Amino acid sequence: MQSTIHPHERLADWLSEDMARVSTLIRERMASRHAPRIPEVTAHLVEAGGKRIRPMLTLAAARLCGYEGEHHIRLAATVEFIHTATLLHDDVVDESAQRRGRPTANLLWDNKSSVLVGDYLFARAFQLMVATENMRVLDILSNASAVIAEGEVLQLTAAQNLATDESVYMQVIRGKTAALFSAATESGAVIAGASEASVAALFAYGEALGICFQIVDDYLDYGGAGDSIGKNLGDDFRERKLTLPVIRAVAQADAAERAFWERVIARGQQEAGDLEQAIDILKRHGTLESTRATARDWAQTARTALETLPDHPLRAMLADLADYVVARVN
Amino acid sequence: MQSTIHPHERLADWLSEDMARVSTLIRERMASRHAPRIPEVTAHLVEAGGKRIRPMLTLAAARLCGYEGEHHIRLAATVEFIHTATLLHDDVVDESAQRRGRPTANLLWDNKSSVLVGDYLFARAFQLMVATENMRVLDILSNASAVIAEGEVLQLTAAQNLATDESVYMQVIRGKTAALFSAATESGAVIAGASEASVAALFAYGEALGICFQIVDDYLDYGGAGDSIGKNLGDDFRERKLTLPVIRAVAQADAAERAFWERVIARGQQEAGDLEQAIDILKRHGTLESTRATARDWAQTARTALETLPDHPLRAMLADLADYVVARVN
Repeated sequence: MQSTIHPHERLADWLSEDMARVSTLIRERMASRHAPRIPEVTAHLVEAGGKRIRPMLTLAAARLCGYEGEHHIRLAATVEFIHTATLLHDDVVDESAQRRGRPTANLLWDNKSSVLVGDYLFARAFQLMVATENMRVLDILSNASAVIAEGEVLQLTAAQNLATDESVYMQVIRGKTAALFSAATESGAVIAGASEASVAALFAYGEALGICFQIVDDYLDYGGAGDSIGKNLGDDFRERKLTLPVIRAVAQADAAERAFWERVIARGQQEAGDLEQAIDILKRHGTLESTRATARDWAQTARTALETLPDHPLRAMLADLADYVVARVN
Repeated sequence: MQSTIHPHERLADWLSEDMARVSTLIRERMASRHAPRIPEVTAHLVEAGGKRIRPMLTLAAARLCGYEGEHHIRLAATVEFIHTATLLHDDVVDESAQRRGRPTANLLWDNKSSVLVGDYLFARAFQLMVATENMRVLDILSNASAVIAEGEVLQLTAAQNLATDESVYMQVIRGKTAALFSAATESGAVIAGASEASVAALFAYGEALGICFQIVDDYLDYGGAGDSIGKNLGDDFRERKLTLPVIRAVAQADAAERAFWERVIARGQQEAGDLEQAIDILKRHGTLESTRATARDWAQTARTALETLPDHPLRAMLADLADYVVARVN
């Protein structure tokens, strides 16, 4: 399913000139003449790097549609700034102890800096996309921003609530994750002046990939090996989030299991050994397995969405990327 | 200097039909089908009301320049959403106990809701301004957003730092307050298709009014009567902010006063009676008085900026508004 060179590395290689320009632009726009705290806080996140999958999606979509201009660089930086701002604001929110294997910004700095520097990055993103002077792109990205924020708020109210069902879960992950993936690919296609069919195909690919990505993330929080993904095993459990494996297990719970979920998720009274017991319950009902199957279905949806696009080396790399995302659970 | 009907009330009366449409639009766009927490949090701020001075500035600028279209309503709602989002994020930041005479959102709800609902309002603001399809307006408002965030971060790093001087103070208040006032008036003029001279005049008016407004606010934190303005006397002192009266007193401090400022502002070791002692020091050096004089100068700058504009009842009301803002300190 994958070669020794991972698909995101092949994408990065193919797009290396564009990505170098994106990195330069990000560094330039992160700077602040008046407030040196800003690059201090963001350097920590930006240099930690991650795979920069979102800006690569924008570049790949634009190039796949034959774009030869300059605006895709700005859009890719926009998407990365929105993502980084969201991480900063999530740090305030989640009190998560670790992000990408490093201490979160709000442990190194403080909540105030995380909120305000996040706001600065949102504003920088907004300036960059305005510079494209493309109204349709602005429409896509402003709508995505609202859907992202709505998904984050919905996640907040859904946490600790055992009545959260799969349809609420899907709304949350469409908002907090898939909306930016689909805006990344759709805006790349639009800036390239692609056909409506290609725009729709790349939107559908981005959305399915984002959903797949988040379901895999939620699986790994219970079924993963911990530190290899820079996230602590059990983070979602401790934050009492209702993610897919738990939602499915709660739906099948007997009386004793129901009492367990009431205690650890609804009331938040967690003790040593509870995470292990939760994982046992998930395994008993096969919900880790069924969550993996759902992730594979979304990877297939992503692949299928690409079929109508013209043949292109990037099309094959994007298809492989979908397999690679889901391969983390195999 | 002022009649029994305040200038902001005459403006509100003149613009009442437009303001009613702005209120309707705000209510519509605050709603969220998926996340009822959003209108719950914002209703608290929006219904507390304030004087809605910023959206009135946008409407007044557009009407003064002869605008007869629809987009000024969207811009006015945009400006109010940006302002409200900033208040929500300030609440996280400042741990202020009181805002507009009511408990702050983050006491009623929590930091998480304040951050994420603020993000939602920023995104809504962004959608509204994109709907105007006016690139120059988008440019103005995206730049203002970056300047606002930069000013907030700069304020954060300047707080507790006795080396903060008047030029840093001016950068902070241009960012955190004046940038939105000037974007409000400038974007109103631009949407109306006003001459470059009128756009520049309304920008200059908004900027000077915003600076005046913030200096008055900073004066009142030491020289005001407390609860009449919905803000606690001494808030800035407790948050160890370097505002104009303090900066000027620090510059003139003798050794004992210097030790006092070091203790209460730089090290934050505050005891009962310290606020009263701080006010005594400010009075001794006449810095409350000189701060009032500076505010009056900025009100005059605002009035003068209006002189090149065509004669119009709204022009007189805007001039009176500048006097009214500074009258709070007389």
